[in-house]
Formats: sequence, structure tokens, C-alpha cells
Amino acid sequence: MLIQPARGRADGQPSPPERAAAPSHGSLVDAHVGRYAARAKDMAASEIRALFAVAARPEIVSLAGGMPYVTALPLDAVGELAGQIVARRGAAALQYGPAQGDPALREGICEVMALEGIRAHPDEVVVTVGSQQALDLITRIFVDPGDVVLAEAPSYVGALGTFASYQAQVVHVPMDDDGLVPGALRECLAGLSAGGRRAKFLYTVPSFHNPAGVTLSAARRAEVLSICQRAGVLIIEDNPYGLLGFEAEPLRALRADDGQGVVYLGSFSKTIAAGLRVGWAVAPAGIRDKLVLAAEAAVLCNSSLTQLVAGEYLASQPWLEQIKVFRELYRERRDAMLDTLGAVMPEGCRWTRPGGGFYVWLQLPPGLNSKSMLPRAISSRVAYVPGTGFYADDDGAQYLRLSYCFPEPARIREGIRRLAEVIDVEAEIRATFGPSQAVPGGAGPAELTGPAGGPASP
Amino acid sequence: MLIQPARGRADGQPSPPERAAAPSHGSLVDAHVGRYAARAKDMAASEIRALFAVAARPEIVSLAGGMPYVTALPLDAVGELAGQIVARRGAAALQYGPAQGDPALREGICEVMALEGIRAHPDEVVVTVGSQQALDLITRIFVDPGDVVLAEAPSYVGALGTFASYQAQVVHVPMDDDGLVPGALRECLAGLSAGGRRAKFLYTVPSFHNPAGVTLSAARRAEVLSICQRAGVLIIEDNPYGLLGFEAEPLRALRADDGQGVVYLGSFSKTIAAGLRVGWAVAPAGIRDKLVLAAEAAVLCNSSLTQLVAGEYLASQPWLEQIKVFRELYRERRDAMLDTLGAVMPEGCRWTRPGGGFYVWLQLPPGLNSKSMLPRAISSRVAYVPGTGFYADDDGAQYLRLSYCFPEPARIREGIRRLAEVIDVEAEIRATFGPSQAVPGGAGPAELTGPAGGPASP
Repeated sequence: MLIQPARGRADGQPSPPERAAAPSHGSLVDAHVGRYAARAKDMAASEIRALFAVAARPEIVSLAGGMPYVTALPLDAVGELAGQIVARRGAAALQYGPAQGDPALREGICEVMALEGIRAHPDEVVVTVGSQQALDLITRIFVDPGDVVLAEAPSYVGALGTFASYQAQVVHVPMDDDGLVPGALRECLAGLSAGGRRAKFLYTVPSFHNPAGVTLSAARRAEVLSICQRAGVLIIEDNPYGLLGFEAEPLRALRADDGQGVVYLGSFSKTIAAGLRVGWAVAPAGIRDKLVLAAEAAVLCNSSLTQLVAGEYLASQPWLEQIKVFRELYRERRDAMLDTLGAVMPEGCRWTRPGGGFYVWLQLPPGLNSKSMLPRAISSRVAYVPGTGFYADDDGAQYLRLSYCFPEPARIREGIRRLAEVIDVEAEIRATFGPSQAVPGGAGPAELTGPAGGPASP
Repeated sequence: MLIQPARGRADGQPSPPERAAAPSHGSLVDAHVGRYAARAKDMAASEIRALFAVAARPEIVSLAGGMPYVTALPLDAVGELAGQIVARRGAAALQYGPAQGDPALREGICEVMALEGIRAHPDEVVVTVGSQQALDLITRIFVDPGDVVLAEAPSYVGALGTFASYQAQVVHVPMDDDGLVPGALRECLAGLSAGGRRAKFLYTVPSFHNPAGVTLSAARRAEVLSICQRAGVLIIEDNPYGLLGFEAEPLRALRADDGQGVVYLGSFSKTIAAGLRVGWAVAPAGIRDKLVLAAEAAVLCNSSLTQLVAGEYLASQPWLEQIKVFRELYRERRDAMLDTLGAVMPEGCRWTRPGGGFYVWLQLPPGLNSKSMLPRAISSRVAYVPGTGFYADDDGAQYLRLSYCFPEPARIREGIRRLAEVIDVEAEIRATFGPSQAVPGGAGPAELTGPAGGPASP
């Protein structure tokens, strides 16, 4: 035996090492603090992350995380499939693979995208470690520090984190109940142009927006495409929820009508399983080439095992039927949330009515602050995500995100009832003592749940 | 049915989409070429990547790729394990997980590292998508454009690609048969200091170096640590091959003797399976915190499935015995390569004699160029990696990397015989017509297989 552990066990496995002391957490000065790159100085823990520990406590109804309800999958069948892939195709599943991704999986991805009207060739697809990596790589190849990126107000917290890590300057574009407001986009582009600046791209989640829960209407899709084409602005269409609509056929993707000006990001995290970490980007050839090189520098390649599992799942399992199962399940939870909101929320609250996806976006009565209210909510055993995490500036304090994807309907109802009480108490205190903190105004958030927004009660 | 494919099939699955035309490959002008970030302009395909397609052709003996021989694993047992994890622990395996990585896996990683004298706490470990991602994240948090990174000459091609993607300036430090030369490191640091510059870190592969096949001696480890401690230079110790030594117990890791000044990168790609994409970094608390945030921005989290498979493999399988199986297998292949090199290589060739790992580094006779010789080698049905890919400058043309990890011993012998003939022919042509291209000199490569280097014949 060439390698001898310090103290061998009879079974040939090494004994547990002497445990080192747990490292300190922020209490000592970081000896390396003067050496970090400029981009690392902006890195800060997201509000969603800080909530993970809290959300795991069983007495809390967590309406915070965006975890898909993966146990609705046929776990035995998927387990059987995964086991067979290792046993029979281990030489490929356990080996490095091409940086662009498994070719058979890329074929399957094209079939999935056809549901949204996209005609793409597998050569245009780059498989990524979830669509989060696609977002990271796109930002890496396009964004120099200080470059402008357009994003909806509010926008996906994970995208904002990535943009910050590349030192982008995010300019928010207002939304209303039909999604991104084309007139506001035009104004925004004109403003940039007047200042001699140009956006590197528009980042948008057109269907069942995270966190806003709204969907860009079909008419507006054409308008947004046309505006961006005329301005020469690339569109990053992030569409993890597109197949999870409750009431209609999926909308035609922006990418379906523009193969050169749109980079489409897709994901199996919500339609198969988040734990596989299989997402993708579809991009014109020049961008595709850069993405492949960036992916190689970042991770060499994604897991062959999880790619083969996703590919084989698409090839051998009734995946479209399973998406219908997910959709029915999430629709029931959405209904539980909207019904209860309508029944119990105090006057002055407004919220969106999602036609699919995972999220409701709620506006608190004037003077209330979702961030300062959170400790009271946690002690009342309900969790949500404060709106501020979804803005690159300090906006959004009057808003919060509610997720209905993971808890059972009865828990959702209980959680909303608890939240209503928290808001009642908070409103009473604010009425007595004044607002806890100035809530910034701004056209962005006001438009989303203002006069055109969701009703205060059904 | 809410989602209706354009043309449904009887089984409920969508019909294959109308296939879009294959995208053009570089023949058209990239419409986005003026929009890329400065860092994307330096991205170019690596020489290893371009060889993947060639290496796959069965008539070619590929001594090019660094693919581990994964079919030596007990595939049935690993398949059974993977299937059970999905079936019984699917709620976790298919779900998002913490950005820092699965806690039980991080415990297992600490046990593995104990074999090299490292006493680490699981809280110091960050699980990454292969150690390539750890390298990417470390560069992301430390390197501003133009910052100096020290790396051995030659150095791992994947690290150089990552450094280039963050616009680092790589300064090579010479090696000899005992690894990095401490005196040269001192000179290098003094030279930087005299120019008012400072290295962000020293990147080193101390054991069974890729591509050089040499190992940093124990005495030099202490010296390198001491030099870097005095100069305040962080060390990135990349150690994917440390447990794959053929002749002795694993050397004590640099990290074992310095928990604050060394970030250690580990990987299961060579000891379990590359297709899992499970690697890790061990870092002091301040750096660890930044790595977790950077990992979250990059991919949210690594695959829960592959992490649980790796963790369960460590917990339930005889992993140390399996490493011995790998070691014996690679030792036999290393012997096949060295024996044949000694028997057939023409005069003027020199090469290293690896004590472990995957690679032999070969110096061609004066006047020969490994890059311009490659087409002749391919047509003679043998592939290698030209040395230039392992230098950030244009050095290394007189060198090439030979991998013995993947082909069977008989194929290795045949490949080396073919290569010897190619070199013979090439030398004859060069003797008649002169060198194909000026081969740059420089202390770096000359030192590695110069007088102190491997013998020209055994």
C-alpha cells in the first residue's frame, strides 16, 4: 500500500482526521483584504441566502425560497434511469465531455424549445450549470466594469448579483401588469443615448416574472423586439418558467422571432429537477463560440452524468405529462395564495396575479417597509423576501416577494394569514409612531402595482 | 392540456421540431463583435480542445488528452448507489443546495485531505464544479486586469486559459526535476518588487505536475512556503494528482503547514470520476466567504445529485482501495511509456520521469517544433499536445506533453514508436532544410529538461 493514512482502520478506510478548529466567521481581520480584485469588493450576501437557514425551520411557513417541488417527480423511475446510465454508459457519464454540452441533450433541448415556437439547431445550444451559469457567462463576455445593463424593475436577484460581480451599472426599466413597459424602454434608451451611453444588453424574464409574477403580453413582445432591433441592443431572454403557465398555451418566445438579436436562456430546474444543474443558452454563432470558450475557462464542462440523466429523461420519460403535473400542482398553490390574500390582506395592500410560475409580488400599504418588518414576520413564523433584493439601487422597500411553489396549499393559507396579521400590527405601529424608514418613491415600483396593478381585494 | 405542441404525437411527446439550418461557423461577420467585453477579446480555443475531435478517431493513438480511465471503477456498484440516492433521497438530490456545498460531502473531503497531512474544518471547504471552477473563482476574486500571477513554466493549460479570461499577466517561474526552483522564485519576486509590482498569487501544481510530470521535493516545499510567507504572496496549491503517486506515500501538502497563506484546490476527477464535476477549495475564512458568494453568482450551487453521489461513494465504498487500483493501472502505463521512450526515441530527445499522475514532458532535439510537427504526427496516427499551450507567452515549441492515463499499455508503446518515427523524419527534414520556425530560448523550459532533466535514454 503506497498511501498510508496516519491511523488505518480495519476496513482500509482512513480514520477521521483530527478535527481542526472551526474557522472564525468575520470576527478576525481578513489578512487578504487588501488583495482582492475590485469586483470582489461589491460581493455581498443576498437576502435570499441569509433566509435559507430560517426557512428550513419547520415551524416557519416559508414563502421565501423559489424551490421547485421536486418530489412530484417519479423518483423511482428517475433513480432507475440514473442507475442504468452509470452502469451501462459509465465510460461517458463519468468522463469529461465537450464544453458545449452533450450532443444528444442539445437535440432534446431543441425539441423542448419548439413548444415556444423556437426553431434552433443543436449547434446553437450551449449547455450550462443551470441557466445561472449562462447568465454569468453572458455577462462575462459582454460586460466591462461600468457598462450599462438594462433590467426590469424589479429583477431576478440572482441576475443582479451576477451583474454586480462584473461591476455592471444596472438601469431599471419599469413594468406594469403586462410586463416591461415599451414606452419606458424607449425613454430609457433615449436617455442613455443623450448621455452618450449605450446598453450592453436588456435582461428580461418575459414569462411569469421572478419576482413580479407578471407576463409580457404578445403585443408588447413584438414592440420590445422592434425597439431593441432599432437601437441595436441585444436581448437576454431568461425563460425558466415559460412552460409553467396555468391558463393558456405558452407564449411565443422573443427568440422565436429573432435569432440574431436575442440570446435565450433555458433551464430544466423547474421542469425536471434543479439538483441536476442543467440549463442552457441559445445564441448566434459568434456569441455561441465565446460562450463555449468562457464555459471551458469556468468549469471545463458541465457534469456528463447529469446531462445524460436529463437527456435520457427527455428521451424515455413522459416529460410533457410531468410538466402538466407540475402545472396543476402550482396552479392549486397559486389559487390558495390568491384566495387567501383576497380574504385576509389589510386595506392598502396590492399584489399581482400570476398566470404561471412561482411568485406573487406584493405592495405594502404606504409607510411600511418589508425589510424592517421581516424580523416581526419571522417571529410570527412566516418568511418572505423583502423587495429591496430585486433592485440594484435601494428601491423596493415597500414590496415583498411571496413564493407558492414549495409549501402545501394549507400551509400557504396559514402563512398568508400570519403575514396579514404582521402587516396589521406593523401598520398600527407605523400609524402611531410614523414610518420606520423613508420609503423611496420612483416610477418603477409604483407602476407595477399602482392603478394598473393587481386589485387590493378580489 | 394547456401546452400544446405544434404537432402532437400519440405518446403525448412533441414531434421533432422543424430543424433550423446549422449556424454558420465563422464564415459570416459576427454582428456583435463590437460589443464584447475587453476580457472576451483574449478568449481563444485551447490547443487541447482542438484535438478532442482528432483524439476520438479510433486509428489514432491519443497521447493528448488527460482523461482518467474511469471504467476501472466498479460501474455497477456506483450505478446502484446513484439510483438509490435519487429514489430514496430525491427531495435533496434533485433540489437546490447550499452554495458552499453539501455538509456531509465537505466532511468526507476533510478525511481525504488528511492523507496529505491537512487538518481542515468542513467550514473551510467550498465545493466547486471541478477544481477548474475553484481556479476560476479564485481568479475572479483576486485578479484585476493587468495583475501579475506567478505560475510554473510550463503550467496547466486550463489555468492559463482562466488567467487570460481575467486579463492577468502571467509571469512564469522555472522548474527543474524537483519542481519549482526556489532561487528563481526569489529572483522573480525581487524583479517584480524592483519594478514596483506585486504578484496576486503563486499558482502551483506541486505533485505530479501537469504537464511537466515533476514533483516539488519536500525540502523545497518548506522553502517555497517560507519565500511566499516573507513576500506576502498567497499560494494557490492545485493538487488533483496528489494521491496518484507510484513510489511513495503522498507528500505533505503545502496547505498542511500553512492554513492562512495557502488556498488548496482538490478534485475527485482523478480519484473518483471526472464526469461528476466535484472539486473543492479550502481557504481561510475571509477568502472562503468571497468564494461562496462568487460561486453563488456563477452557478447558484453545484449539482446536489453529483455531490451526494460523491459523498455516498466516500461513505460506503472502499475508495482508498480503488485509488490503489487506479495507481497500479497508471503505473503500468507510465512504465510502458518510459520503457518505450528509452528504447526508441532518437538522440537529442529528453523527457521527465513522473513519479505519479498522468504526464511525461518531452523535449525535442534542437531545431524541432512540436506545433509544426503535429500534422505529421496526426497523419502517422499519434497525437500529443504541443508545448506552446502550457506557456502564457509563445514559449514551449520545443516541448510536448504525452499522457499515459487513458490508452492501454500496448497502445502506448505503439504510439511512442509512431512518435519516434515522426521525430526521426522531422529531424531529417530539418537537417536538410533548416528549422521550420525559430524556437524561442529562455531559462524556463531549458531548465526543466536540460542538464538536470530526465535522461535522453535510460
